[in-house]
Amino acid sequence: MKQKVTLKQIAKELDVSISTVSKALKDSVEISLDTRQKVKAFAKLYNYKPNNIALSLKNRKTKTIGVIIPEIVHHFFTTVIGGVEKVANEKGYNVIICSSNNSFDKEVINMEMLASGSADGFILSVAKETQLKKDYHHIQETMNQGMPVVMFDRIIDEIVCDKVIIDDTKGAQMATNHLLSLGCRRIAILTTVDYISVGKLRTNGYLNALRSYDIVHDDSLILKIEDIDHCEEEIEEFLKDKDIDAVFAVNELFAVNAIKVLRNSGKNVPEEVRVVGFTDGILAKHFIPSLTVISQHGEEMGERAATILIDKLEGSDDLTEEYKTVIIDTSLVERQSTKK
Amino acid sequence: MKQKVTLKQIAKELDVSISTVSKALKDSVEISLDTRQKVKAFAKLYNYKPNNIALSLKNRKTKTIGVIIPEIVHHFFTTVIGGVEKVANEKGYNVIICSSNNSFDKEVINMEMLASGSADGFILSVAKETQLKKDYHHIQETMNQGMPVVMFDRIIDEIVCDKVIIDDTKGAQMATNHLLSLGCRRIAILTTVDYISVGKLRTNGYLNALRSYDIVHDDSLILKIEDIDHCEEEIEEFLKDKDIDAVFAVNELFAVNAIKVLRNSGKNVPEEVRVVGFTDGILAKHFIPSLTVISQHGEEMGERAATILIDKLEGSDDLTEEYKTVIIDTSLVERQSTKK
Repeated sequence: MKQKVTLKQIAKELDVSISTVSKALKDSVEISLDTRQKVKAFAKLYNYKPNNIALSLKNRKTKTIGVIIPEIVHHFFTTVIGGVEKVANEKGYNVIICSSNNSFDKEVINMEMLASGSADGFILSVAKETQLKKDYHHIQETMNQGMPVVMFDRIIDEIVCDKVIIDDTKGAQMATNHLLSLGCRRIAILTTVDYISVGKLRTNGYLNALRSYDIVHDDSLILKIEDIDHCEEEIEEFLKDKDIDAVFAVNELFAVNAIKVLRNSGKNVPEEVRVVGFTDGILAKHFIPSLTVISQHGEEMGERAATILIDKLEGSDDLTEEYKTVIIDTSLVERQSTKK
Repeated sequence: MKQKVTLKQIAKELDVSISTVSKALKDSVEISLDTRQKVKAFAKLYNYKPNNIALSLKNRKTKTIGVIIPEIVHHFFTTVIGGVEKVANEKGYNVIICSSNNSFDKEVINMEMLASGSADGFILSVAKETQLKKDYHHIQETMNQGMPVVMFDRIIDEIVCDKVIIDDTKGAQMATNHLLSLGCRRIAILTTVDYISVGKLRTNGYLNALRSYDIVHDDSLILKIEDIDHCEEEIEEFLKDKDIDAVFAVNELFAVNAIKVLRNSGKNVPEEVRVVGFTDGILAKHFIPSLTVISQHGEEMGERAATILIDKLEGSDDLTEEYKTVIIDTSLVERQSTKK
């Protein structure tokens, strides 16, 4: 990836202050013609593109964190925000939330709007459409303007920034291993289409677990669901007359719908078919049977992301850029849906 | 309530432009001394308090709606936001969301932050603490600065503004009438403490319904829950050995917990005890038995609130202020928990 240059880096390289660089780029007469020309030549060479509004507000600290999530009617994402709010409150920061509604355009608009003086930095989980389009210019530009971005959950490998993730592959492997350890051998997986990174990673974890038990996977036991809102019909069609002893579902909703479909076809959960879900939400806790799930610890993800972001915002003006990727441990929460 | 004066009203009263008033208040030499003195005297007389940042950004339309809700990990509120987003998208507006986390201070901070140039107007459901404290200065000041506010769900009667509500009393009455029409006579209610307006209104609806059937209410059948997060123990203690044939719960969580407690004590729902909840969320749909509930039509509330706000933002500069209160019809969604 071509790394764009930041104001800070130009200043360092030419041994002038950031404010000098900023003024030179705006052709201020306060700066000598010579310096102006040098700064502009350097900026051009390294493809520096300023956001004018952001520049003018550069020195105004808003003490506000912008959070952009793909969906707002979504328990996991709101739980992460809960964690962000907790740390932000403790450290005297406000939190502003925007939903991209999984649209690339809305993500770009939200990010530019908040970057124009409403927020000092971002906590971001990208839209499905952004993952599909692979267009990340808005994120890169925001960072180039000196605003730190911490990604969580749905991250982008190609962008170098701080990240807080869970090991989806490992979590799914843990879920599948749990079913295997209970003696299940015909394990179906209800997952998402491949371009959704978490769905793909969880499918990989499922395959890894089968391999570790020397089980050759059966493609007819893998369902990749595209339309999450109407998953029930797809799941019903898929599970019809299928000879299985377990289901691993990559989210709560798939798991709950699987249990309903199984029950309607006369199969008991957990006695005849065991079910494990992913995400420890409100359905998992309250459904009967309660669901065994892999918990992603959403609140902890939010807390870690906010801590990293605030540390960066309050950090020294050190030019060394360091990014970390924090992997939050997932854990298996055993409940009724896999009881022996 | 003492109505504070707006810039617009001063302008109208003195027959000058809004910009003249604004400049006069800032003592601009562009304005004649005479006019400056008149404006300032008038502003003082009517207790006009400008927000400087807001004033300076007065002419910058952000095309952004600020939404402030009491809780973010809450299905109903996120559903309302879904409705707001839908209308806002159609009309080219962005949406920024902040959670007060039911804290008065956070509500004030969020509102002032968004009012300082990030949003043109507000959609607000107030914090529990604000209802308790009865301090609404932040809302009044925002409106005085010419930023429209539309309240929904948890509204404040004393503030004159646009409101989108459901008739909680009527909804609760509908729920209780449904149970009465099924022959239930010993109906318990699981509600919240009185200072939460919706809890109180729903309790009133329950009492109205009993009265209409000439049933004298029994205080021992009314549980007012304070700590929603730990409601299960309270509900268990309350329902123990109680001779009842139905439960009306003012939210989903109380309803689900009631069913669990009843089941654990050997009582079947709906055969022996029928249960109706309030709010048609994810639990109500997926729980087994699925819940009969009063639907608040959250998405519709959001759509109506956004429509009213945007109409106001794009409306003419007409000085007549008109406010409307829209009451969204609730409806009974019959499911398994009250099946005959």
